[in-house]
Amino acid sequence: MSSVPEQLKPIFDQLDKNTDSNIAKLAKAISFKAVSADESLRQECFKKADYIQSLLEELNCTDIQQFDLGEEKPGLPLPPVILARLGTSPTKKTVVVYAHMDVQPASIEDGWDTEPFVLHHDKEKGLLIGRGATDDTGPLLAWLNMIEAHQQLNKELPVNLIFCFETMEESGSIGLENLIKEQSQVSGYFYKTCSKIDAVAISDNYWLGTTTPALTYGLRGCNYYQIKVSGPKADLHSGVFGGCIAEPMVDLVQLLSTLVNSQGEILIPGVKEMVAPVTEEEKNIYKSIKYSIEEFNESSNSNTCLFDNKEDVLMHRWRMPSLSVHGIENAFSGPGAKTVIPATCTGKFSIRTVPHIDSAKLDALVIDHVNKEFAKLNSKNTMVCELIHDGAYWYSDPYNESFTAASKATELVWGQKPDLTREGGSIPITLTFEEQLKSSVVLIPCGRGNDGAHSINEKIDLENYVNGGKLLGSYLYYLAE
Amino acid sequence: MSSVPEQLKPIFDQLDKNTDSNIAKLAKAISFKAVSADESLRQECFKKADYIQSLLEELNCTDIQQFDLGEEKPGLPLPPVILARLGTSPTKKTVVVYAHMDVQPASIEDGWDTEPFVLHHDKEKGLLIGRGATDDTGPLLAWLNMIEAHQQLNKELPVNLIFCFETMEESGSIGLENLIKEQSQVSGYFYKTCSKIDAVAISDNYWLGTTTPALTYGLRGCNYYQIKVSGPKADLHSGVFGGCIAEPMVDLVQLLSTLVNSQGEILIPGVKEMVAPVTEEEKNIYKSIKYSIEEFNESSNSNTCLFDNKEDVLMHRWRMPSLSVHGIENAFSGPGAKTVIPATCTGKFSIRTVPHIDSAKLDALVIDHVNKEFAKLNSKNTMVCELIHDGAYWYSDPYNESFTAASKATELVWGQKPDLTREGGSIPITLTFEEQLKSSVVLIPCGRGNDGAHSINEKIDLENYVNGGKLLGSYLYYLAE
Repeated sequence: MSSVPEQLKPIFDQLDKNTDSNIAKLAKAISFKAVSADESLRQECFKKADYIQSLLEELNCTDIQQFDLGEEKPGLPLPPVILARLGTSPTKKTVVVYAHMDVQPASIEDGWDTEPFVLHHDKEKGLLIGRGATDDTGPLLAWLNMIEAHQQLNKELPVNLIFCFETMEESGSIGLENLIKEQSQVSGYFYKTCSKIDAVAISDNYWLGTTTPALTYGLRGCNYYQIKVSGPKADLHSGVFGGCIAEPMVDLVQLLSTLVNSQGEILIPGVKEMVAPVTEEEKNIYKSIKYSIEEFNESSNSNTCLFDNKEDVLMHRWRMPSLSVHGIENAFSGPGAKTVIPATCTGKFSIRTVPHIDSAKLDALVIDHVNKEFAKLNSKNTMVCELIHDGAYWYSDPYNESFTAASKATELVWGQKPDLTREGGSIPITLTFEEQLKSSVVLIPCGRGNDGAHSINEKIDLENYVNGGKLLGSYLYYLAE
Repeated sequence: MSSVPEQLKPIFDQLDKNTDSNIAKLAKAISFKAVSADESLRQECFKKADYIQSLLEELNCTDIQQFDLGEEKPGLPLPPVILARLGTSPTKKTVVVYAHMDVQPASIEDGWDTEPFVLHHDKEKGLLIGRGATDDTGPLLAWLNMIEAHQQLNKELPVNLIFCFETMEESGSIGLENLIKEQSQVSGYFYKTCSKIDAVAISDNYWLGTTTPALTYGLRGCNYYQIKVSGPKADLHSGVFGGCIAEPMVDLVQLLSTLVNSQGEILIPGVKEMVAPVTEEEKNIYKSIKYSIEEFNESSNSNTCLFDNKEDVLMHRWRMPSLSVHGIENAFSGPGAKTVIPATCTGKFSIRTVPHIDSAKLDALVIDHVNKEFAKLNSKNTMVCELIHDGAYWYSDPYNESFTAASKATELVWGQKPDLTREGGSIPITLTFEEQLKSSVVLIPCGRGNDGAHSINEKIDLENYVNGGKLLGSYLYYLAE
């Protein structure tokens, strides 16, 4: 970090100085059991939002609003989205910062080594351990730590910021998409003090591995389908009816067996043909990424990888579609030996989508295929195949202005070029921001691939927490240049 | 019934006279909520056993014993099996009578028109409605009513009886098989006062329809299998791993799809070949049975019957094997759209067995087939297919001495020859009695096909309840001849 620009140097030093107080801030923030999936902990979500709001107030943010999203169901209010502003200069760029305050469920009984909602600082390993440390409370605070350092030094931020912090991310971001759409109108929150959003930054994913930082420029989408086969009006006893009646489960497993083979190849005609061809430029991105089959096997804790080289693994994880069969609803699913013929059963599967799969065309191909296969069965049962949920893929130019700034910032702070990664999963709100704010989105992760975001002993490396502030500050600096 | 033998005539008259008191006895017996599947009602099972024992005492039975079967699990005692004796004459035949005292769960919320544990006498329709009315409390009492009538007339029974009444039939008859085996030893209960059991009679099934009485001479067996496919060590997120990892569910649906087709044909090589050919004599039995596709469709409440004539339906229900796919354990089985790749999943299926399928050979064929199909998949996952439960089929000569007596009795009481039926389901204890007591077993049903044994509004027609006593008394009379 010999070449740290003059303007950033004191900020970096100040962040180093503030390490202890910033750890204390993280300890306080993760002490709220803000598990959005646990109704009994809903009040903790509200309390954590109030705490985060108090931090925004200390940083002199303006126009801080907690938006009421209504009820999740009767009697269960949704926790708020906080929008806040810092700076309204017409000569500066405006950046929207998204993060979430809620966390995944956690309890010591799950196998944690320490209490999940009490921050444990493992000084030997340099780890800050606790639920939310990396997903997403640590990165959220990294933004605030960075701003505090500026203010302690009486330095202005090089851009205007608009914060968008939600409390339902781990439970489907209920209400957020609508709120963004509303507030993206001409009279909405996002355009009250600026005419244009120049960038959106999200630190809610992770490096691919543990040694190389990353920037993420793509997410797969997900189209989720069900096949419902119906026969008799009620479950039947297989002793009495077996052999005489058309069994829905028999039809269903026949249909599910026509979707994908054991090598992961999608068997539905026309799907592969929609996938964007791999370019030479893309191949180079994959070649340069430090990754191995061994790392993949470690993360799955098995030797069931379908490929034998890292390029194939990463491409099939990030830029190729996949089809997973998740399970069956209404069939017998308990332990033991129940002799039931289920009257109705519903198979669930989903396809991860990538450029340039057209979502509506995919739905038509899937449903047409299943209908044809069902016709072949010549069954007396009835069958309906339908889409039950979809989320679009997202893909950005990894060499645009925002990514270039994030790349320079990464190299400055970590001393090495970031891996340009994509993710297999979807973060639907990414696309919402891009579409509604007509702005580029950058995914700029703070934490490492082994942070255990949804697992036990979630952690963020102290180095990543401190460098997170430096990284995000540098990103704004280069973006403003 | 003009030809009622002199000895039986007064018995029949006495049973008619006792109708009101016998209804009252049924009302008392079904007032116990003896649901063996409901742990919280275990004491009701004990109370009902005590009540039935009191009835046996009133009939001067001897050597009445409640056998303690130990615990179902720690702290939950199994309800007893009652063995009792009536008559020890060395010149008379000895008949073992089996029935069960426990019942299926029932509550008004399930949709009953009247309280299930309060007997409702629908005088207009001539029905006795209540849980246990036909399964199996009513038939159990029919035996006792018949004996009471004899004693009121100071008439001796033409045979010796040994009662075997259990209280766990609806929950797998836990402990009964062992007890029968123990008590069938030379020093056991069954041989204490006789050297030979001449017949076993069970009234725990039903006519095929509603107009023709039946005798049942066969039951299918059931071999229950599971296929467990294992891959990663824990469930994975399909966004992150989909397309790169061998998915156990994908393999499992492929395997399940190779077992049976939508027309109910078993696809496992070698199974069909073991089935006994249909004889001409058998064909005649099927032809003479009053039954229709419409009746079958009514019972399944759908039009999903695989056949278009009664002979095919009945043969596939009774004397042909069938394969049912019941469900999958450990895959996603809830509502909604969960994007999980299950780490392990276990498919459950069973084959109903018939003469002359060799159970061990069937297991070998099934497991060999699944292993071969799995090898074809060339999967990185591991797979184990295994038998988890089996119960043998039972098949009797419907023209032997005991069946002939039962047939004469049926014709006497109901004025028509019984249908000779089989059942698709298994009653494993039937085979245990036959093997352990080296005696023929007759299934001699009292109730009709629409009694709703395991359903709501269970009933026995008053006519069947009263005639049940006459039928069983006549059976003993003709058997003794």
